[in-house]
Amino acid sequence: MKKLINAPDQVVPDALRGLAAAHPELAVDVEARTVVRRDAPRIGKVGLVSGGGTGHEPLHAGFVGFGMLDAACPGEIFTSPVPDQMASASQAVDGGAGVLHIVKNYTGDVLNFRLAAELCEDAGVEVRQVVVDDDVAVTDSLYTAGRRGTGATLFVEKLAGALAESGAPLDQVAATARRVNESSRSFGVALTACTTPAKGSPTFDLPADQLELGIGIHGEPGRERRTMMTAAEIAEVSLDAVLADLPPGGPVLVLVNGMGGTPLQELYILCAEVDRILRARGVPIARYLVGDYVTSLDMAGCSLTLCRADDALLRLWDAPVQTPALRWGR
Amino acid sequence: MKKLINAPDQVVPDALRGLAAAHPELAVDVEARTVVRRDAPRIGKVGLVSGGGTGHEPLHAGFVGFGMLDAACPGEIFTSPVPDQMASASQAVDGGAGVLHIVKNYTGDVLNFRLAAELCEDAGVEVRQVVVDDDVAVTDSLYTAGRRGTGATLFVEKLAGALAESGAPLDQVAATARRVNESSRSFGVALTACTTPAKGSPTFDLPADQLELGIGIHGEPGRERRTMMTAAEIAEVSLDAVLADLPPGGPVLVLVNGMGGTPLQELYILCAEVDRILRARGVPIARYLVGDYVTSLDMAGCSLTLCRADDALLRLWDAPVQTPALRWGR
Repeated sequence: MKKLINAPDQVVPDALRGLAAAHPELAVDVEARTVVRRDAPRIGKVGLVSGGGTGHEPLHAGFVGFGMLDAACPGEIFTSPVPDQMASASQAVDGGAGVLHIVKNYTGDVLNFRLAAELCEDAGVEVRQVVVDDDVAVTDSLYTAGRRGTGATLFVEKLAGALAESGAPLDQVAATARRVNESSRSFGVALTACTTPAKGSPTFDLPADQLELGIGIHGEPGRERRTMMTAAEIAEVSLDAVLADLPPGGPVLVLVNGMGGTPLQELYILCAEVDRILRARGVPIARYLVGDYVTSLDMAGCSLTLCRADDALLRLWDAPVQTPALRWGR
Repeated sequence: MKKLINAPDQVVPDALRGLAAAHPELAVDVEARTVVRRDAPRIGKVGLVSGGGTGHEPLHAGFVGFGMLDAACPGEIFTSPVPDQMASASQAVDGGAGVLHIVKNYTGDVLNFRLAAELCEDAGVEVRQVVVDDDVAVTDSLYTAGRRGTGATLFVEKLAGALAESGAPLDQVAATARRVNESSRSFGVALTACTTPAKGSPTFDLPADQLELGIGIHGEPGRERRTMMTAAEIAEVSLDAVLADLPPGGPVLVLVNGMGGTPLQELYILCAEVDRILRARGVPIARYLVGDYVTSLDMAGCSLTLCRADDALLRLWDAPVQTPALRWGR
């Protein structure tokens, strides 16, 4: 295993120290494992808190800042954070208007966020929860009952974050977050497995001439293996899966996401094929976002997430955002 | 070889089609291989043109936009673009105030940009040139006489771009670009070699327990091979090399750059070590930028670039920028 680390058990605190150094606008508590906007709590603003296992950077800590999350709770690699972390982050960002927990649908996260919500309610912090479950590849998986939460998390955090920034009340922010999740579908493809620092070898075995369709972000099994495909074929299979399940509606926000080990040049090649296919099928395209946003350590591969967006959601998408990984308009 | 491509000889045009789809604010000519700001030429504004072989994304096309480059000329992978491309891009962005060519110090790029400058002068476009040569690892290399141009290219493009946006004349923009290059030093480390689509196998052989210090962005040989090191040791060796050669001056801009195949979490670990060492050595730190900016396809590894910046340069750094890969403040 060759990784740019000091020791496998120091990856999370070391990376948090780096995040703190690079981003003085974030309050990073390396001990408590919380990343909070330095201007939190904002009185009267709904707080947005997310979190989950790390290894998916920039998700979630890279999305903390103006117009997106108020706090993130990083767990160990591919391991849920604990309820105390979530409760502590929630209390730190509660400005009296309540807190929305954005939870990817993995059993550990769902359970721990539920316990955290109870701790919050005990402490007088009102909590709503949205569970993100956008991945159409499999119905149940290694770590999940129901669909997995992947790329749509970015859309939920950006769009609900913009709405919260505008001063909307908790129930409205929660309803929009749920609507974004319900309007989003994803599908991922792995060209290689990822290697966790603790294990030191690939999480699964994928022959040199094969790829895995419908992969999750922790190396969970997908739908099937096939011999290596072109970017055009990968786009076709992925969009077939996504569009078969995507609700009807407005134009789409498209996330062309890299899993961590795939060069940006290749993601743009995939984007070209996605664009060609969507146009051919008459799906109106509103915006693209291309890059590594919801990753799986060093995995080579990609995922596509589409979100149906009406004018209201598009305005939220275009609204200013100022986080380490997503910035515009301000 | 597993790559998200259609065919090795279609990588560059396919990626340009994707760039065009994702970024309607750029005028991408897939045939002529130029990427130009759609609002070019801006009358009275100095035009900034760069380019080089591709495989280093987001450099350069990802840096075209407000406050940075006016145009980029992508070559084949690791291969210089041709003079006609450069001349055509220069004419497209000349608003009567002349054009600055930002050239990384590789023999092919230097030669072709020189020929392009002659074509431009023939067409009545005034041209100045800055050659970027920040890499302290080796004095001559496989493709270079003198030092290689790497991470400082981002600093030159951002700082000179901000100055040009403010309406400064050509000679002043060129002088600042040269000053930024002279104030910058870089050092890179490879954990793995990269694989070009054309070759289909790693460009060099690096044993599983070794890394290469002082690597270039095309897999050119570095200074030496060592057995695998920790992030702290890699930061120490890299900063030793950079600081030994960095001119004295103001606080430093620090680019903690990934080579394409290294997860962002690991780059933040490196950033933590860099921050610790710079503080211990009393080097004042002005800003960090952490991410994949000057890459080498799927290579795992990193590079560090430091640039001494006075208040004037820091103001240019903080000035608004709006490109696919670098955005803030607007």
